[in-house]
Amino acid sequence: MGRSLTQKIFAEHLIEGEMIAGKEVAIKIDQTLTQDATGTMAYLQFEAIGIPRVRTELSVSYVDHNTLQSGFENADDHRFLQTVAAKYGIYFSRPGNGICHQVHLERFAKPGKTLLGSDSHTPTAGGMAVIAIGAGGLDVAVAMGGGAFYTTMPKVVGIELKGKLQPWVSAKDIILEVLRILSVKGGVGKVIEYFGEGVKSLTVPERATITNMGAELGATTSIFPSDEETRAYLKSQGREEDWVSLNADADAVYDELLEIKLDELEPLSARPHSPDNVAKVRDIGPVPVQQVAIGSCTNSSYADLMIVAKMLKGRTVHPSVSLAIAPGSKQVYTMIAQNGALADLIDAGARILESACGPCIGMGQSPSSAANSVRTFNRNFEGRSGTQDASIYLTGPAVAAATAITGVLTDPRDLQMNYEEVVWPETFTVNDNMIISPPENGAGLEVLRGPNIKPLPVNEALPGEIKASVLLKVGDNITTDHIMPAGAKILPLRSNIPAISEYVFCTVDKCFPLRAKETGRGIIIGGSNYGQGSSREHAALAPMFLGVKAVLVKSFARIHRQNLVNFGILPLTFVDEKDYDGIDQEDLLLLSDTSAQMSAEHMLVRNLTKGTEFKVVHNLSERQKIIIKAGGLLNYTKNR
Amino acid sequence: MGRSLTQKIFAEHLIEGEMIAGKEVAIKIDQTLTQDATGTMAYLQFEAIGIPRVRTELSVSYVDHNTLQSGFENADDHRFLQTVAAKYGIYFSRPGNGICHQVHLERFAKPGKTLLGSDSHTPTAGGMAVIAIGAGGLDVAVAMGGGAFYTTMPKVVGIELKGKLQPWVSAKDIILEVLRILSVKGGVGKVIEYFGEGVKSLTVPERATITNMGAELGATTSIFPSDEETRAYLKSQGREEDWVSLNADADAVYDELLEIKLDELEPLSARPHSPDNVAKVRDIGPVPVQQVAIGSCTNSSYADLMIVAKMLKGRTVHPSVSLAIAPGSKQVYTMIAQNGALADLIDAGARILESACGPCIGMGQSPSSAANSVRTFNRNFEGRSGTQDASIYLTGPAVAAATAITGVLTDPRDLQMNYEEVVWPETFTVNDNMIISPPENGAGLEVLRGPNIKPLPVNEALPGEIKASVLLKVGDNITTDHIMPAGAKILPLRSNIPAISEYVFCTVDKCFPLRAKETGRGIIIGGSNYGQGSSREHAALAPMFLGVKAVLVKSFARIHRQNLVNFGILPLTFVDEKDYDGIDQEDLLLLSDTSAQMSAEHMLVRNLTKGTEFKVVHNLSERQKIIIKAGGLLNYTKNR
Repeated sequence: MGRSLTQKIFAEHLIEGEMIAGKEVAIKIDQTLTQDATGTMAYLQFEAIGIPRVRTELSVSYVDHNTLQSGFENADDHRFLQTVAAKYGIYFSRPGNGICHQVHLERFAKPGKTLLGSDSHTPTAGGMAVIAIGAGGLDVAVAMGGGAFYTTMPKVVGIELKGKLQPWVSAKDIILEVLRILSVKGGVGKVIEYFGEGVKSLTVPERATITNMGAELGATTSIFPSDEETRAYLKSQGREEDWVSLNADADAVYDELLEIKLDELEPLSARPHSPDNVAKVRDIGPVPVQQVAIGSCTNSSYADLMIVAKMLKGRTVHPSVSLAIAPGSKQVYTMIAQNGALADLIDAGARILESACGPCIGMGQSPSSAANSVRTFNRNFEGRSGTQDASIYLTGPAVAAATAITGVLTDPRDLQMNYEEVVWPETFTVNDNMIISPPENGAGLEVLRGPNIKPLPVNEALPGEIKASVLLKVGDNITTDHIMPAGAKILPLRSNIPAISEYVFCTVDKCFPLRAKETGRGIIIGGSNYGQGSSREHAALAPMFLGVKAVLVKSFARIHRQNLVNFGILPLTFVDEKDYDGIDQEDLLLLSDTSAQMSAEHMLVRNLTKGTEFKVVHNLSERQKIIIKAGGLLNYTKNR
Repeated sequence: MGRSLTQKIFAEHLIEGEMIAGKEVAIKIDQTLTQDATGTMAYLQFEAIGIPRVRTELSVSYVDHNTLQSGFENADDHRFLQTVAAKYGIYFSRPGNGICHQVHLERFAKPGKTLLGSDSHTPTAGGMAVIAIGAGGLDVAVAMGGGAFYTTMPKVVGIELKGKLQPWVSAKDIILEVLRILSVKGGVGKVIEYFGEGVKSLTVPERATITNMGAELGATTSIFPSDEETRAYLKSQGREEDWVSLNADADAVYDELLEIKLDELEPLSARPHSPDNVAKVRDIGPVPVQQVAIGSCTNSSYADLMIVAKMLKGRTVHPSVSLAIAPGSKQVYTMIAQNGALADLIDAGARILESACGPCIGMGQSPSSAANSVRTFNRNFEGRSGTQDASIYLTGPAVAAATAITGVLTDPRDLQMNYEEVVWPETFTVNDNMIISPPENGAGLEVLRGPNIKPLPVNEALPGEIKASVLLKVGDNITTDHIMPAGAKILPLRSNIPAISEYVFCTVDKCFPLRAKETGRGIIIGGSNYGQGSSREHAALAPMFLGVKAVLVKSFARIHRQNLVNFGILPLTFVDEKDYDGIDQEDLLLLSDTSAQMSAEHMLVRNLTKGTEFKVVHNLSERQKIIIKAGGLLNYTKNR
């Protein structure tokens, strides 16, 4: 029976377990990446594990999130990351060098490898046939220490791409179409594998746009084959030697199949406030727009910015619109500066931001009150822009540029502009001077810590019984942005758990942190797809610090559930979802004899306030049970 | 008797008073400018005055301060400013178009005109023979309404420039040398007028660097003649018709004279924490540096960035240094993007920021804890960078670039680099598409306000007696940054006096706002040069809101004293400075029969706590007395 590309790479990296969908497997990790907002914690955890040098083939530490630096905290974090990288054998990508996923694709990703990254958009590298998975910082720390990565063996969804994109239609529209079909829950427990004739017409950065935003499907990862196009891209980056040909077998069997006819796609947009709320731009109509933002790990490649520059050349950004553009990497930035495209963008009135994540993570450029903002990014959750009542539309670069010119949401086909294909450069400008290689031996080096970098809090072992009140009850599709908000005010506290804990659930319920601390031990009740979005482990670590012992929901998003396990919080799901309705905030719940119950088929929870009882399951592997009982992965790792 | 250029322009604009140094004069204002951090308040005040259209020759509203946008407030302010500009006949320079002073010099400044700006660095336009004065927003609002600007007729200090700068020595070193000689108090009540052979060798932007930082002398303004160099600059900007020849008479008599031999100057730096703490870079020695920042209204012209680009081309920013560069205007940014210099800067590892004030006002790029940061800016007050324990060194661009390469404070002459003169472009790239001209008639237009834009608080009339306790006693050289801090957290509140008042004196004494509100009425005691630095009227308006009735000091900085008058706070100085020593915080002071006492030669203050009595003076003109009694300029203007 033919194998998918996913199965081939998993098989090659399998350390433990059987490759049966739904079963836990352990795989070897070849490469890791971190960014600064999750990285400080990951390296504090790596230090706590106590290994003198990373044991991966390659580990890279990027700085791309906290680059505004409104206070000493960010620069202190950068310095910590730079010194810890040198000490433990990690490559350090300096601030200004670009967005981790864009830079990793350009300079480090290799077909057939596994990559674990402490960022949910790590699957970007799937555009180059990498099994690239987002995870919490602690998982990445363990992988850096040479440990395997444990995950549920995913199903593989095959998406066959047929035909070729029409002018003005982009790779972004492909993934928006997939999101429209599958929804933000549609990828949970799955890898999305692309194949077919249509793949050939997509460049590696276009493929990366698609795999990047596979994160919004909740997928474990997404992947494309490695073909002549991949070889050409690697060659243009001076790394042809990294190329291998990789494909699914012709008779590969997929768990699910989907077909997308590229010819039939039109410019699409995800409307507020979910990436799967997708419609045709023409159907949405000319919504007035106050801001357009172009960039992020989804759409900031050379070709993305070139099409925007061509459209804006000799024109002026509409007076009602603020247009912000952040190039994806120093390479992209240098190239558009060299060929004159950047001058055209500046001349048209674009506000050019540093090469970083920027407004995509609410790090600056918050729109005006009640504004509509059109963005080439990957997420449009409410409030994520930093403006609570703003509405975000996600589109490709050409729609964004057209909108910047007209001031209303615009299908570029309606502009009567000539479509001019971006000429792909044969050679990219390669200068890795902003990536610092680690010295051969870092043993004697000092790690510099600022006053905002606090020691890692560690959980207690799982108590014999959990008697705790419901601190909060929330609905479906709660994101990690709800649990642990980001943005310019909170992100600088990522290295300081006591301080950042004051903001847990603050957009949902300002009193949550205080109530949690007063209560001592607590439980959170949630709906389905709880913990979707960003991979930030702070969404588990900070609640743990506040005394949360269990999270009880209809269903979990993968990375967040793993983070809960890693920090010793019991992730429970209802056997009967109707029991959700019978619980209210402040109800006192009792989960007795935890250790014994965890071995049973299901666990019993008593609602002492209501006098009811209901069944829950944990779906933990044997290994995960031991981790939970130890109070988290760090205790577990140290115990061994 | 020959006249100085200053006297000529004052004479041509005189409306009231005699041109005798120290006497109050009123002059006609031809042009005004505002920036967004002071502008929202200035336009709220203009609206309160109730005139349908500005009565100046030209008024421009710039957005350059609050451009990070960490929250809805900034974008709402921008929208307010754009709509208010259209309504009242004001040109609007959109965010991204650059720093007000740089853009004004390029596109609007005209020799022989008067310019009033709600920014302390408004004297930048003095580089083009403009009498350009910084003032509080309310003064600018009155000037926009056609009202005269009242000021103390300044003395004129003539500075003769001899010879020519040596390679690697810059205009910044000239003004640093003047600061070294005269100190941050040396310019109070004076205009600094440059003349002599050495003037000819300086381009208009170089002259503007010098007049810009004249603000740090405490001077009313600084000015250069308008000569063939001025004509050439205007021609290169496509505005030769704006040129007139303007000079002091050959036999002009100056109140004071100073001579600077340009040939003998060397690269200088202002050490922490004052712009007059100046020494030779070689004498300071190789201080390790963690950050270099290039830009600001002082040093962000085309030539400034070109010299940096030439030095960095093919090199890499030192691994220990973060180099941030913000071009001064869209024009500068476009030109270095067109000619390849920007590509060289990016390739070397510079972090390119939006064209705006940026780190100079603590708006991002705060250095790491205890860092040394070398900046081409104009102020190095403690904490202004956003990092309380950082040390800021002010230098010219070549020193900054040399330091970015080596990682330690470096005189560029020690680098063995060839000095390559920047070739001045014959024609600048002119595209005013980011400056929106107001419509002929704005009567029907709506002004858009966000929820953070609060109505202007207005003071009560001066009470018959002031019985109030000393809320705070501070020392010498207190800046408006101490009184009303800026930075990324506080600046977004500039349109909201109740909210921003919570931060008055917060770096000096966190409890000040609470104590002031609890006390009801209060008095502040200060040393000499109280209120130096930025022109922000919030340093008077917010204390007024908190109930401050009088400020009693050894001496005042000019703009701040004027702002106190404008908001109805009594500005008093000790007759005998020794009386300062006899007052403590919390002492209860009594100033009885205020109205009668204000007409006497001096006023008597009783210290009820200590049982002492001492003399103070107010030095108010008759007009200013009426303003104070009315409770401020807005009440006064409305009363008439």
